[in-house]
Amino acid sequence: MSSSAPQSDSGSPNPVLVEVTRGDLVESRHRAAVAVVDAAGSVLMSAGNIGHPVYPRSAIKQLQALALVESGAAEAFGCSDAEITLACASHNGEPRHVEVAQAWLKRLGLSETDLECGAHAPKDTTAAEALLRAGESPTTLHNNCSGKHVGYLATALHLGAPTRGYIRIEHPVQQRILGILEMMSGCELRNAPRGIDGCGIPQIAIPLSHVALAFAQFADPVDQPERRQAACERICSAMAAHPFLVAGSNRFCTRVMEATQGRVLVKTGAEGVFSIILPEMGIGVALKIDDGATRAAEVAAGRVLEKLNLIDDDARAALSDLLVQPVKNVVGRQVGQVRVAQDSPF
Amino acid sequence: MSSSAPQSDSGSPNPVLVEVTRGDLVESRHRAAVAVVDAAGSVLMSAGNIGHPVYPRSAIKQLQALALVESGAAEAFGCSDAEITLACASHNGEPRHVEVAQAWLKRLGLSETDLECGAHAPKDTTAAEALLRAGESPTTLHNNCSGKHVGYLATALHLGAPTRGYIRIEHPVQQRILGILEMMSGCELRNAPRGIDGCGIPQIAIPLSHVALAFAQFADPVDQPERRQAACERICSAMAAHPFLVAGSNRFCTRVMEATQGRVLVKTGAEGVFSIILPEMGIGVALKIDDGATRAAEVAAGRVLEKLNLIDDDARAALSDLLVQPVKNVVGRQVGQVRVAQDSPF
Repeated sequence: MSSSAPQSDSGSPNPVLVEVTRGDLVESRHRAAVAVVDAAGSVLMSAGNIGHPVYPRSAIKQLQALALVESGAAEAFGCSDAEITLACASHNGEPRHVEVAQAWLKRLGLSETDLECGAHAPKDTTAAEALLRAGESPTTLHNNCSGKHVGYLATALHLGAPTRGYIRIEHPVQQRILGILEMMSGCELRNAPRGIDGCGIPQIAIPLSHVALAFAQFADPVDQPERRQAACERICSAMAAHPFLVAGSNRFCTRVMEATQGRVLVKTGAEGVFSIILPEMGIGVALKIDDGATRAAEVAAGRVLEKLNLIDDDARAALSDLLVQPVKNVVGRQVGQVRVAQDSPF
Repeated sequence: MSSSAPQSDSGSPNPVLVEVTRGDLVESRHRAAVAVVDAAGSVLMSAGNIGHPVYPRSAIKQLQALALVESGAAEAFGCSDAEITLACASHNGEPRHVEVAQAWLKRLGLSETDLECGAHAPKDTTAAEALLRAGESPTTLHNNCSGKHVGYLATALHLGAPTRGYIRIEHPVQQRILGILEMMSGCELRNAPRGIDGCGIPQIAIPLSHVALAFAQFADPVDQPERRQAACERICSAMAAHPFLVAGSNRFCTRVMEATQGRVLVKTGAEGVFSIILPEMGIGVALKIDDGATRAAEVAAGRVLEKLNLIDDDARAALSDLLVQPVKNVVGRQVGQVRVAQDSPF
C-alpha cells in the first residue's frame, strides 16, 4: 500500500454488498468498499475502490482518544476505563452514558456548557421519550459524542491550552490528533480534503485502505513508540470491558462486542462507515457504504466478521437479527430483510 | 414501451444522480433511475434502467384512490376534497390530518380500531413530542397512511365487502386496485413480484417506466373510460387544493405543491421512490433511488421539475433548501449539501 495522498475516484463503481428485500423483490441495493489490512500494510481482503478518500467520522474515535491517553491527560485526571471508553463512544444518551460524562466533566472543574458539540435528543428512543415526558430538554451531555468532547477538554487542560475553541483545527488538541492520524494511517494529511463533523470537530479525508491501516497499527502496535503502544492497549482493554458505554441498549456495536467477549472492537460512524479492531489477529478493517446507509454498514461489518471466522455459533445466535436484519412493517410483521447481496463479491 | 411483465436488472449500474458533500469532499453518492413519460407511452427523458421493476410504495396512493372515487364510494359517502386528498397522503400525523381521518371514519360508522395499518408516532416531530408531553400514545390515526386506509374502508362498505381484512390481496378492494394498476400501467401484474407494505397492504412490483406511464395516463386520462377520467380529474383537483393534507408542515410534497400552485402533484414513497403528475403537460414521472434514500429522491424530483421548466424564480426561492438541501451539524451550522451530482447525466 502506498502512502500517497488521498486518491481520486476510479471509474468502476463499487460492488453491491448489501441488498434489501421485500417479499419477492430486491427493493434497494447498497454499494460499498471494504479494506481488511494488517499492520505491515498488506491488504488481506478487499472489495471496491479502497483507494478512495473517505471521512471516517465517528469510526475513528479510538484514534482520536489516543491523544487523551498518550498525552498523559488520562493519567493526570485519573480517568477510569469507563471514561476512556466513553471518549470512544457514539452513545445512546441513556442515563448511564450521561452520568459518566457528567461526573468526569465535574472532576475537570468544567460543566456541560464547556462542551461545544451541541445538544440533541438521546439516540435511544426510551431515553428520549423519558426526557420529554419529564418535561426536560436534551443537553450537550446527551449528544452521542459527549464523551469524546470531555476527553478533548481533559487533553486541552493537561496541555495548558485554552478549553474554548477546542473543536477548531488550529487548536493544539486537534493538531495533536492530526499528527496521530498521519502517523497511524501513513498518510500526509495537511492538504487532504477537510470538512466539519456533526459535533463540530474537523473531519479529514483518508483513503479507506489507510483508515484500515491505522486500525491495524492500533490492533498490533508493536512498531509504535512505547507510549502509543500502551495507549492503544489501554483503549482496547477499556472498550472490551465496557461495551455498553460504546453505544448502548440494542445497538450493533455494543451487542457485537458483548457477543464476541470483547475480542472484536467495532465502531460505527455516520454516513455508513465502520471500523473494526482485531487485537488478537493484529488486523484493522474499514468500510464505507457509498450512499451512507447505516443498515448496510452494519450488515457489511457482520459479513467481515463472518469471513474472518470471528462469529461462533453462540455469537451467530445472539446476533441473528443484526447479521441479517429483518424489515418489519408497522404492526411488527417481518416483510423483508437487509442481507449480504446474493451476488456479493465479498 | 412494451407492456411486458417486469424485466430483470440489466448489467450496467444506474448513474449517480445525487451527491452529498461535506467540506471539500463528496462524502456519499446516490444512484437512481428516472422515467418521464407521456400518456402515449413515449419516454421523453430518462436516466438509468427504467425497465427494472420497483415497488412504487406510497408514491402510487393517487392510483389506489381511484378505486374510492370511480367505485362511487366517495360520492355515496359525500367525501370532501380534503378526505380524498388524505386518501392520497403520507401525512405527518399533525392534528389537522388526524381530525380529517377521524371525522371521516366516524361518518362511515367505524372507528380507529377498524384501521389495519398499525399505530406509529406522528412523522412531524412537534406533533410527536406534543403527544408524549401530553402522556398520550399514537393511534392508527397518526399512521401516515391512515387516510388511505379510511378510503379502503369506505370502498369496502360501498362494495358490500367485509371491512375486516381489507388489506389482504384477496379482498375485493385490493383486487379492484390491482385491476386499476394493470390498466393504468399497461402491465399484466398477476405474476409480478409482490410484497407487503409498511402499512400492511400488498405492494406489486412494476417496471419504473410503467409506473411513469400510469401517472401519465392519470395526468392525461383522455383515453380512459369516462368514470376513470372523472376520478383522475377529481383527485388531481383535490390534491392541488389541499397540499398541506398530502404531507404536512415543512414536507417536500406539500411545499413543492404550494410553490407551484398545484400545477405539479408530487408524492413521496418509502425506499426512495417519487411520483410526479403534471396535468397541464400530460406527463407522468417516476423515480427510484437504488439505495432507498429519501434525501436523494427529493433532490432528484426537484431536478426533474427544473428540467421540465416547472420551477420559476419564485418557486426556486421558496424551495431553495429542498432543491439543494443543506447538511447541518448539531449546532445548526451548514457543513455540506445534498445536491444534483456534478456529473449527473440528468
